[in-house]
Amino acid sequence: MFKYRSPRLSEVRLQDGFLFPRQRTNGKVTIPSAVRQCRDTGRIDAFRLQWRPGMAKQPHIYWDSDFAKVLEGMALQLLVEPNAGLAAELDEYVDLVISAQQPDGFLNTYFIQVEPEKRWKKLITDHELYCAGHLMEAAVAHFQATGQRKFLDCLCRYADYIATVFGPEPHQKKGCPGHEEIELALCKLYDVTGEKRYLDLAEFFVNSRGQTPNYFQTEEGVAEDYLPVVQAQRPVHEQRTAEGHAVRAVYLYCAMADLSARTGDAVLLTRCEEIWKNITEKRMYLTGGIGSTPMNERFTCDYHLPHDGYAESCASIGLLFFTRRMMNLTGKACYADVLEQILYNGALSGISLEGDRFFYVNRLETGVDTWEHGVTYARERRPWFSCSCCPTSFCRFLPQLASFCWSYGQSELRLEIPAAGQATFRNCQVEVQSQYPYDGHIRIVFHGQEPFTFSCRIPGWCRNASVSLNGQDLSSLQRQNGCLTWKRLWQDGDVVELSLAMPVEIVRADLRVSACRGRVAIRRGPLVYAVEGLDNAADPGSLLLDPESAWQFEAVEGLPEGTLGLRGKGWKESLPDDCGLYFSATPQFEAVSILAVPYALWQNRGDSRMSVWLRNGKGC
Amino acid sequence: MFKYRSPRLSEVRLQDGFLFPRQRTNGKVTIPSAVRQCRDTGRIDAFRLQWRPGMAKQPHIYWDSDFAKVLEGMALQLLVEPNAGLAAELDEYVDLVISAQQPDGFLNTYFIQVEPEKRWKKLITDHELYCAGHLMEAAVAHFQATGQRKFLDCLCRYADYIATVFGPEPHQKKGCPGHEEIELALCKLYDVTGEKRYLDLAEFFVNSRGQTPNYFQTEEGVAEDYLPVVQAQRPVHEQRTAEGHAVRAVYLYCAMADLSARTGDAVLLTRCEEIWKNITEKRMYLTGGIGSTPMNERFTCDYHLPHDGYAESCASIGLLFFTRRMMNLTGKACYADVLEQILYNGALSGISLEGDRFFYVNRLETGVDTWEHGVTYARERRPWFSCSCCPTSFCRFLPQLASFCWSYGQSELRLEIPAAGQATFRNCQVEVQSQYPYDGHIRIVFHGQEPFTFSCRIPGWCRNASVSLNGQDLSSLQRQNGCLTWKRLWQDGDVVELSLAMPVEIVRADLRVSACRGRVAIRRGPLVYAVEGLDNAADPGSLLLDPESAWQFEAVEGLPEGTLGLRGKGWKESLPDDCGLYFSATPQFEAVSILAVPYALWQNRGDSRMSVWLRNGKGC
Repeated sequence: MFKYRSPRLSEVRLQDGFLFPRQRTNGKVTIPSAVRQCRDTGRIDAFRLQWRPGMAKQPHIYWDSDFAKVLEGMALQLLVEPNAGLAAELDEYVDLVISAQQPDGFLNTYFIQVEPEKRWKKLITDHELYCAGHLMEAAVAHFQATGQRKFLDCLCRYADYIATVFGPEPHQKKGCPGHEEIELALCKLYDVTGEKRYLDLAEFFVNSRGQTPNYFQTEEGVAEDYLPVVQAQRPVHEQRTAEGHAVRAVYLYCAMADLSARTGDAVLLTRCEEIWKNITEKRMYLTGGIGSTPMNERFTCDYHLPHDGYAESCASIGLLFFTRRMMNLTGKACYADVLEQILYNGALSGISLEGDRFFYVNRLETGVDTWEHGVTYARERRPWFSCSCCPTSFCRFLPQLASFCWSYGQSELRLEIPAAGQATFRNCQVEVQSQYPYDGHIRIVFHGQEPFTFSCRIPGWCRNASVSLNGQDLSSLQRQNGCLTWKRLWQDGDVVELSLAMPVEIVRADLRVSACRGRVAIRRGPLVYAVEGLDNAADPGSLLLDPESAWQFEAVEGLPEGTLGLRGKGWKESLPDDCGLYFSATPQFEAVSILAVPYALWQNRGDSRMSVWLRNGKGC
Repeated sequence: MFKYRSPRLSEVRLQDGFLFPRQRTNGKVTIPSAVRQCRDTGRIDAFRLQWRPGMAKQPHIYWDSDFAKVLEGMALQLLVEPNAGLAAELDEYVDLVISAQQPDGFLNTYFIQVEPEKRWKKLITDHELYCAGHLMEAAVAHFQATGQRKFLDCLCRYADYIATVFGPEPHQKKGCPGHEEIELALCKLYDVTGEKRYLDLAEFFVNSRGQTPNYFQTEEGVAEDYLPVVQAQRPVHEQRTAEGHAVRAVYLYCAMADLSARTGDAVLLTRCEEIWKNITEKRMYLTGGIGSTPMNERFTCDYHLPHDGYAESCASIGLLFFTRRMMNLTGKACYADVLEQILYNGALSGISLEGDRFFYVNRLETGVDTWEHGVTYARERRPWFSCSCCPTSFCRFLPQLASFCWSYGQSELRLEIPAAGQATFRNCQVEVQSQYPYDGHIRIVFHGQEPFTFSCRIPGWCRNASVSLNGQDLSSLQRQNGCLTWKRLWQDGDVVELSLAMPVEIVRADLRVSACRGRVAIRRGPLVYAVEGLDNAADPGSLLLDPESAWQFEAVEGLPEGTLGLRGKGWKESLPDDCGLYFSATPQFEAVSILAVPYALWQNRGDSRMSVWLRNGKGC
């Protein structure tokens, strides 16, 4: 059972300067741009089923998922802000997708048109179930946004067909997808339809993973050492560490959390807690990114977090989704801390402020020696990729931003992230006034009279918080689970004021993270800062930070109004010319000032080198 | 034209304590152990051609190359030290290999037995030409060691058959191997047979690489972005940087150097010089290792040299072979400096002192966060690998150690590396007495009377050298191309004494190498030092070196007599318990002494963490 639920998008809204502009830009720029890309590349026309061998724009195995995520984003965006034009466009595309469904319920533009004989033949690589899952999520969002059942019914037919192919009966396939996604989508389908067979199918897919004999080995000839890449090295009830392809992994863990909430499977919940701890305590970048190597875009081993690692946008967003589920399941403070860490850093870094360029990989450092293997790992954001999962993830992620700021309990409203905005709880509107994340002074105003418990999370990064209710100091109030909590009859005009001390902090990493040894990062409140070459006298690689530096706030030209840059002190290292690759000359150091900007906003003012981890100029 | 030649193995020998024991161990341990592995895994029986589908020990596409390299090693070892048992064993194996040759000349156990229909169908991956090349090298060595032509004739027949399949005629394939090797082997075949058709075939393979249309693309459907992995992104005459799979690359560059020497192709020589500069000035580890990522085991971009990179043993040895050719072609000092750097560090680190365990990857650091992806990237040396190119490379590399110490000119003998040993030049024996690489005092004694030019390389790392001839100080002698040179009638009993100052040096890397920023390494003479956990109070990852430390020599128990460890000063960093992955606590530092051992000898006394690059404890 979930202890909390995420708010419906109609219950909450944002008014802040950090998150809200991204959400607004999604409707204006990100979604239209993704639709245009889907149209130009053939992803939309693929659903017309008119492609024939030899023609251009041959559908690809993952194309349907891209367009499905855009459709889901359109539906969610409609829940945030009505838009008749967008609604009409969505309706048209939904009809197009429905029109491609086959008589047996199958719906996949690649396997209908390109390789019909290969349907369900190569689950390890072929993404049919992954695409089906994203179409289900889109259909659920469409139903929630419009109340229309046509798309939902279409995907229920598809799910019913899939349930004839896969399952425990002797004649059925015992396989599961090589790329998870359908499992969590089937849980959503169950939630909106109440049809237990969808939950059963989700459970079948999750539980058939990693069984002996292993379907991927016996039916598809997959080598044993590849099994962890797809989280199939052992049954999920025995998985305790995060393994393999990071996006696939967190999608699986989302489904495990969903299942445990709906079936009461306590072991699965324990595994989720263990895996989440393994990720966040040993396998996550400071920015909330995950994935330690481009080889299979995967988790590797504890503390292996190279500075030029592989923090894919989709993986950060997926970890945020998993973390949100764990918040809802447990209500524990640790989850909200990490959710905030991902949200304000490694997730939003993936999209440009203009909303139409994307990182596939969110690096923590770029230098001369940053290896760009093709477009995917490019140092600059790109409008689209041949494998374009990341841009389309933003379409559906950004409309949900407000929902991450609040948790709804049975008779409790909890403010998780005090970004300016508001939430409606029963008859009460709770308004948050703040300049968060740049300022720790928060004013929470209640409109309407209602008895309920109001909780306010004190972020884990905050060491000094004061709070008052209607001017009365309540700083000595006991915290429960990281929150200040009041149960009372809230009155129209009640004001809770919260003051979160937000000093600049110098952060170090566990010594076992070899890439970070001798380096420090700058953090203030929830924001991790980055040093860009264009703000500084030198490539960040030649800068050393004075960890005892005093800091000054500074407006940064070219970044949104209100953005606080941080100016501190350090040194610039230089070497005699022509030293060669390795040398015994002694470097020179010159005192310089260093300007840092929020990591989530880097690379929005032109290309230059960047570093999150600067060398500690004081040595030992 | 080569300006110098490598000495024949019968012309030189070693008596030192660093290289010679490896060579001796090769005959006693390394070769017998490799033969046993080849027998146990089926690599030898494969040549009996009795494998049938369904049987165990199915031949693999690269098996023949492994056994060929062992045979080459056996032959070369016989040139170093006569051994009747070894000679008889070699003869038996050579007969077995010859017996597997097909009537048309084809000789490949995989494509004869497992997939006969696939012969020459997939050059990009299938290694037929690579295996053929190693068999040719083995046959040439066998001929040189025994004077027998049977193996050589067999491989000439094979080469003649290959020349009917590949070539410029309309009916011939225009392809080249996905893994280079046959090109340099054909040059050797040309050298011993004088048959120009083998040189022509080598030239055909080298020059057909990267042409338009690209064979790999048009005939085998290889994606364009994969072409650099096999050095086929453009014609070799237009290649200026080292690209792709590091072993394949250096084997190609060896062949380019060989061709330019034999055909007078000056452009090819210029390309070799440019590529070699690109490698050694921008893409090589301090230890002489190459390859920056396990993804395709490849070169990536300039200065991308991660601390947990991919310095494969075969790649270091291959770079040494390429460098030796460049020494011979140009006689320039820069080449000998790098050859020595590879030889004393990243090449010999690949094999245990006992001679029967091997690194596939020669890391410069191992920590908790060292990712071990299966056996290949293991932190400890292993007796064998499923892809066992590295162990068998040592079998054929170690017998050649003495030959790297000398260069033979028309009327000039050049001492490149003053390891104790001797060379025969015409009627003169030149004996080197030294404790090199641990001591810079070298005594060179001439036995016999002979007029010739004697040159003595002053290593690039040496800033202060003095020299005398028969007691007369000649330190003011002009160096030519990094060498001191005397042209005279050498007399029996002449003595040249050389004193190379060999202080401990603190080495830094170019700031563009981000993994090394803020770190220093320890070098003395040609030796790079490493810090192992078992010699020190802490995991090397928590140590900081005092770059101004004084140093003391120290015998190291468990390492060969004469090994000099270096003891200096530094600090050990420690942190409060339970800081978490990222934290703002301040570390504590405690003064400690630090013991370093030669990198080539690490991991010979049990498993512990290791680091070549230590943090600089003085900051800026």
